[in-house]
Amino acid sequence: MRRRILIRVLALLLGIIALSMIPSLLIALVDRETQSIRAFLYPLVVCTSGALLALGLGKSSNIAFNAGDGFLLVSLAWFLTSILGSIPFVITGVTSNPVDALFESVSGFTTTGATIFKDLEKLPRSILLWRAMTHWLGGMGIVVLTVALVPLLGVGGFQLLKAETPGPEKDKITPKITATAKILWFIYIGLTALEVLLLMMGGMNWFDAVTHAFATMATGGFGTKNISIAYYNSAWIDWVCTIFMILAGMNFSLYYRILQGKFQDLLKNTELKVYLSIVIITSVLVALVVLPQYGTLAGALRFSSFQVASIITTTGFATADFDLWPSFAKAVLFLLMFIGGCSGSTGGGIKVVRHVVLFKQAGNEIRRLLHPRGVFSIQLNGRVGRKDVVYGVAGFVFLYLTLVLLVTLVVSSAGADLISAFSSALVTIGNIGPGFGLIGPSQNYSNFPNYVKLVWSFAMIAGRLELWTVIILFTPEFWRR
Amino acid sequence: MRRRILIRVLALLLGIIALSMIPSLLIALVDRETQSIRAFLYPLVVCTSGALLALGLGKSSNIAFNAGDGFLLVSLAWFLTSILGSIPFVITGVTSNPVDALFESVSGFTTTGATIFKDLEKLPRSILLWRAMTHWLGGMGIVVLTVALVPLLGVGGFQLLKAETPGPEKDKITPKITATAKILWFIYIGLTALEVLLLMMGGMNWFDAVTHAFATMATGGFGTKNISIAYYNSAWIDWVCTIFMILAGMNFSLYYRILQGKFQDLLKNTELKVYLSIVIITSVLVALVVLPQYGTLAGALRFSSFQVASIITTTGFATADFDLWPSFAKAVLFLLMFIGGCSGSTGGGIKVVRHVVLFKQAGNEIRRLLHPRGVFSIQLNGRVGRKDVVYGVAGFVFLYLTLVLLVTLVVSSAGADLISAFSSALVTIGNIGPGFGLIGPSQNYSNFPNYVKLVWSFAMIAGRLELWTVIILFTPEFWRR
Repeated sequence: MRRRILIRVLALLLGIIALSMIPSLLIALVDRETQSIRAFLYPLVVCTSGALLALGLGKSSNIAFNAGDGFLLVSLAWFLTSILGSIPFVITGVTSNPVDALFESVSGFTTTGATIFKDLEKLPRSILLWRAMTHWLGGMGIVVLTVALVPLLGVGGFQLLKAETPGPEKDKITPKITATAKILWFIYIGLTALEVLLLMMGGMNWFDAVTHAFATMATGGFGTKNISIAYYNSAWIDWVCTIFMILAGMNFSLYYRILQGKFQDLLKNTELKVYLSIVIITSVLVALVVLPQYGTLAGALRFSSFQVASIITTTGFATADFDLWPSFAKAVLFLLMFIGGCSGSTGGGIKVVRHVVLFKQAGNEIRRLLHPRGVFSIQLNGRVGRKDVVYGVAGFVFLYLTLVLLVTLVVSSAGADLISAFSSALVTIGNIGPGFGLIGPSQNYSNFPNYVKLVWSFAMIAGRLELWTVIILFTPEFWRR
Repeated sequence: MRRRILIRVLALLLGIIALSMIPSLLIALVDRETQSIRAFLYPLVVCTSGALLALGLGKSSNIAFNAGDGFLLVSLAWFLTSILGSIPFVITGVTSNPVDALFESVSGFTTTGATIFKDLEKLPRSILLWRAMTHWLGGMGIVVLTVALVPLLGVGGFQLLKAETPGPEKDKITPKITATAKILWFIYIGLTALEVLLLMMGGMNWFDAVTHAFATMATGGFGTKNISIAYYNSAWIDWVCTIFMILAGMNFSLYYRILQGKFQDLLKNTELKVYLSIVIITSVLVALVVLPQYGTLAGALRFSSFQVASIITTTGFATADFDLWPSFAKAVLFLLMFIGGCSGSTGGGIKVVRHVVLFKQAGNEIRRLLHPRGVFSIQLNGRVGRKDVVYGVAGFVFLYLTLVLLVTLVVSSAGADLISAFSSALVTIGNIGPGFGLIGPSQNYSNFPNYVKLVWSFAMIAGRLELWTVIILFTPEFWRR
């Protein structure tokens, strides 16, 4: 790609991200925090000036991206955005370690929700809002946002969207890329606003409601209290969060279908049916196991379904320290860490649809063993899927698990026990947040050396961009183009 | 399949397995152990009588098995053989729990090497030999053995061989099934004899040399001492075991190529190159980490390469309690638990070749992303592989990991911590033996409830038969034929 165009697009994108610092800046002004005001004002001024400069340098619509250009641009966008997002943490001085600041920013944008802060309740409100904002932007996608706001990316835009949107097959909601991006963002904003209202009805103040709605809809997991949602001790708030986590883990194109009145598309959606079945079955299983701890079935279900939804959607909120639950309950959550949300959702992980494809493929293998001359295909959503999908999914899952094991190796080299190391790999690549052991719900990520935090940061971005987009940059084929 | 033929073949097979009790019976006679004599004599007489009866009932060569019949027969053969193998443990009274006896027998035939005995050195020699014998028979395959000895199975034999031999693609060494089975067994016997000699040169008595050679060549792991090979405290014995474990983890058809003088086939074999590279690299890595513990690089390499070979080939011998090694070394061994030996070896696990296929598939996906209209194939051993192989491998790995997670759930329901439960699933399905935590090298499998032991037993047989052969029996498609 012409280097100049690349730089212009990135400058625009960073300008848009910087604009999202305005709410934090306003809060800092209200709270009269001099450090925080500077922390948001400086990057805002620098980045928006850069973006205006880039815009002024002439309009070039219909930039014909090829596939490789798209991957490079999206990867760079995420790495640069993460650095931009870390600047307020450094300037305010809430952390003295720049690697911690970067980790927190990456964890925010990738909607992982793993934190290096030991005491959230001491942080300024502007910083807490910024953490929630990084979630919310990263959840729907920063490139999707740019495409929605600046109809500059023309033909190449869909290429970019593909590189950022999760799932093995991308639904084009509408043929026009800008329209698709706008629809997705409207749905996202609508659901977020609804959740803010419901959380305030449960007694949250507006600030907590907004930050938690951001974190829920993005399946992020950053809260504002040290003991996460458990702080509010409210069944209403727990259930609102549970339901909105589950909603955020669904494919957003389904909401568009609902708006169009095409309800039968929901009933035909294989991934949705499997996803909801897993949530219900595992919630009941865990509830039965933790029943003695919580007394009533309703109470047990409240805590079990919350935690199940939190892990499968890769949000990572906690209402209980699940690391203290009975082994079987922990094993169920561990299993859910391998699954993830639906494709086209804000959730991370391997995604339900890939498991469905591989499960059906395994079934086909059995049929082929019994009838060696038969030809078998895979049905999804009532239609026959392309055979290629299996290839893509097989390669993806292999790469995913290989990366999990490599990150496990790195983390264990810092002396972490196996389950801490392994679950940290699962929850960073899957963008979940808390794991087991040293990184359990009552722990945090600050006590590790910098090289481990950098590897985790890389893992979070690779996981958020579904591996290919990032991994491809490390192949000789890419640079040989 | 005509039920009568099924019963006849199984009777023959059990007769052959029972004949392998003769060495244990002789040892029992020498040692004048009344209980042990009866323990081997009774099943021997019953099963050989049954087999003679089955032989006498007429000869029916060229039984035309179809695919489904083969799976049923092989699965039944393994379940019945396991029960037969457990009888001596019950009659001698070395365990009072029949489920323990079954577990030990399954662990033997599947070459897992997980034991429920707390004090091996108190067991009669006849029982120790029987444990080694179950390894040795199961390593090459009890059905392969039957095919080699009784040329009765005719056309259907290859179907059976396929169901029992590991690896996604089966090499027919010769077009004739009986000849192939005989060649494999001759190579197996030859290597075993060589190892017996070398172990005796290292100072082992003939009994220990034979039992350990059986366990090594089968990649089993049952020893005769409580602290496994560490008992001998000999660098020579350690290295002999290491080298023969590595040899046993190689594809046996390669030895046939060597006998034919086709050395270039070895150099072209992708799986072999990857397998040996993994062994060397991980041995060196682990050696560097455990260096402070063992002082010299030679000493560290001796222990690291032994443990690496033991885990990757799924043998499960120990010369050190690796559960006490530094985290990084443990993580490397944990990673190796996902790999396994080569296809066509006596080793278990996922197998190196499947990882190679998926790795190459991931590479192709990257190429396809960069060149959306390109067509890419997978090369193995210098030749283009069939596209179908990826489908089979994808289905297999998915099924494998799903089973690992389900067994983890069951084991955790008995209260085991996550890493014990998860590694127990990995090492039973992978036929490795020792894992981490409650089932580490210095522990054993006896302290779990019976239902967990039964699930482990099922997992070991499913893993040994590479899942499909067993799993297929649980599908409605199979019974609808």
